[in-house]
Amino acid sequence: MTEGLEYTGFVEDGGTPDEDELVCEFYLKHVDSVEFDWASGAVAAESSIGTWDPSLTTMRDGIREMGARVVEMDTDAGDGRNDGVARIAYPTELFEPGSIPQILSSVAGNIFGLSEVVNLRLKDVVFPSELVESFAGPALGIGTIRSRVDAEDRPVVGTIVKPKLGLRPDEHAEVAYEGWVGGLDVVKDDENLADMSFNGFDDRVEATLEAKREAEEETGEQKLYFPNITASGDEMKKRADVVLQNGGDYVMVDILTAGWGALHEIRDYVGDDVGIHGHRAGHAAFTRLPYHGVSMLAVAKFARLCGVDNLHAGAVVGKMEGGRDEVVEIYDFLRSDRGIKTTIPVASGGLHPGVVGDVVDILGSETVVQAGGGVHGHPDGTRAGGRAMREAAESAGEGVSVEERAEESEALATALEKWGTE
Amino acid sequence: MTEGLEYTGFVEDGGTPDEDELVCEFYLKHVDSVEFDWASGAVAAESSIGTWDPSLTTMRDGIREMGARVVEMDTDAGDGRNDGVARIAYPTELFEPGSIPQILSSVAGNIFGLSEVVNLRLKDVVFPSELVESFAGPALGIGTIRSRVDAEDRPVVGTIVKPKLGLRPDEHAEVAYEGWVGGLDVVKDDENLADMSFNGFDDRVEATLEAKREAEEETGEQKLYFPNITASGDEMKKRADVVLQNGGDYVMVDILTAGWGALHEIRDYVGDDVGIHGHRAGHAAFTRLPYHGVSMLAVAKFARLCGVDNLHAGAVVGKMEGGRDEVVEIYDFLRSDRGIKTTIPVASGGLHPGVVGDVVDILGSETVVQAGGGVHGHPDGTRAGGRAMREAAESAGEGVSVEERAEESEALATALEKWGTE
Repeated sequence: MTEGLEYTGFVEDGGTPDEDELVCEFYLKHVDSVEFDWASGAVAAESSIGTWDPSLTTMRDGIREMGARVVEMDTDAGDGRNDGVARIAYPTELFEPGSIPQILSSVAGNIFGLSEVVNLRLKDVVFPSELVESFAGPALGIGTIRSRVDAEDRPVVGTIVKPKLGLRPDEHAEVAYEGWVGGLDVVKDDENLADMSFNGFDDRVEATLEAKREAEEETGEQKLYFPNITASGDEMKKRADVVLQNGGDYVMVDILTAGWGALHEIRDYVGDDVGIHGHRAGHAAFTRLPYHGVSMLAVAKFARLCGVDNLHAGAVVGKMEGGRDEVVEIYDFLRSDRGIKTTIPVASGGLHPGVVGDVVDILGSETVVQAGGGVHGHPDGTRAGGRAMREAAESAGEGVSVEERAEESEALATALEKWGTE
Repeated sequence: MTEGLEYTGFVEDGGTPDEDELVCEFYLKHVDSVEFDWASGAVAAESSIGTWDPSLTTMRDGIREMGARVVEMDTDAGDGRNDGVARIAYPTELFEPGSIPQILSSVAGNIFGLSEVVNLRLKDVVFPSELVESFAGPALGIGTIRSRVDAEDRPVVGTIVKPKLGLRPDEHAEVAYEGWVGGLDVVKDDENLADMSFNGFDDRVEATLEAKREAEEETGEQKLYFPNITASGDEMKKRADVVLQNGGDYVMVDILTAGWGALHEIRDYVGDDVGIHGHRAGHAAFTRLPYHGVSMLAVAKFARLCGVDNLHAGAVVGKMEGGRDEVVEIYDFLRSDRGIKTTIPVASGGLHPGVVGDVVDILGSETVVQAGGGVHGHPDGTRAGGRAMREAAESAGEGVSVEERAEESEALATALEKWGTE
């Protein structure tokens, strides 16, 4: 056996991570036949340099020192049945700078499938500054986004064109126009609207950016459009070209279904003047259960490093899951100083004007608040729905109750009458 | 309310999918406050054209007919507590041809996060032939791969260079050479070995492909090398160029951490003569639990459509999870006629010569069987480990027991002595 290459050889309980190491926190549940330290060591080994057979004939001097180390084990942190939380420190040279795919293949790769591990969750990742600096990070930052639409004192408000699929390009542009003229800052495509037979990407972008110019002229305000370029990497670049050629300054990517490799590529391609709106469609397949998968907090960290400017990060209220503490932690992270620009969190999913105040109370106003059904389901149409959302955002920014504001706004009053304030 | 746009309006229990529809099978568990049909309808709505507010003012004639339909509900299929299995049929026009990201954003997107859905698992997807034909599919097919290495009568055998990380390019190439000369068909990089400070991609590929030529000359056999090009999409193309310029004919991609967008791109880029070895690092974060996430069977279907020639698909025996029935179903799918070329399944993870026979008994010999620790942990080194694997593969192909074969092979006898046959 090569010294220390057995799984338990990767355990150094009570050790201290070096400043330049990457540190992961895992929840882990194991089978009866092994102990917590063995299972933690297996995770550290298999996510760094080790394998099941500790007597490799191919080892060389110095490699053992590159191994990850379990520096902390807390078996009181779980349900007390073969489980607990382990912190693992990884030397930086285990990672390719600037590559989320390579980092994930290490710390969120094979380890989820180890036989003796029943459940495993990557709860958090802390990146050393050397590694952070190897990433592009967001192009714009929260301040730039808010100032572009003159929303420094209130949340940015927007809508998703609905129905999700089915509108033709001219109809799509018309709905967008109504939303902007109503008062919204942002209009975005939905996550499954790409280049469709009934709604071709190029035609949609051309028509919708033309509608944006008209709305800007009419309102005297700057507006934003997030066209969904999700596709293969090559195709995303072509679609980004179409956006830029038509005067757009933002693209939207379904970051998990398009994937990290394509996201890196598009961030590099569009450069430092174009924002990326990151939709997280599919995340809850692996973020939702508290005992398995990868936390949304970790996903948010990867996305910010990759250069996502706006990230769907939960709303606490509305139709989508996500507990308050978890979502607040993600929002705090996205807005915090980390050596790269900030990412503006996006609250979306089942929202309407009556809950904008709650979203701001819980999550603050450095936020993009989006409503789809809560705009286009307004009895008086999209323009009134957009107006109601804007009024709700302004009242939240001013600390005025939405009911009080509704006394001066018919659109808002009608919205509250339909949807209430919960 | 627009007719039929409420969630339950998407339920048509007892309906029949059309031949050109995509059909998904979901396991679903819901909260107490809703019924199974409501929750199934919510999934169908949110993965096609619907949203929570059924009275959208922006609907147009004909869109409602594009909605997905719950065609079958089986509430006896679960544990009987607010759960069951639903089959949902999707009209083809909901999907962008040839785009896995767009299809996933629909059928494996937001629906995992719906508040009223406690657990959701995409168990299976059946693609209509029209959609299948819009994808590239594998470049080579199983027959081509097996004939390239003259392994028509036995499983293809290979190794992963170990330790996973830490070897320098010349050391990596030396280990590979030893494996090939020992008798292996295939040598591959590990999933987290990309372009590292201690092992640069270009140097590694140059040295290892040179070692491959030497091994081919020495053995008179054709060998395969799967260099891991996992990175951003652009960078993967540059790395593929390096592989091709150095005489390689295969690339390896961590398909889930690089992502579908980059995988599409690389399949398109390398064309129809170069194979793609697909590693599934990270899959178990969402495939492992039987009641949540996406099944590995569905992932295998997406991967084959995208053009993965070799896919890690479970081994039943060894260090990684994966039940026998599930793995057999995936293997059967990858080898079946589906209007595109076949994908050769790869068994890997904790294997050694003594279990090759079991793998073949359970999974058949149209398989790549890989061992890392089970080759380089051989007491007499990588060459002897490679020899033992080859002998084990040949004996499995001939239906001879590995113990009988070991009587004529010192390398195999030593392997069995160390690792046994389980």
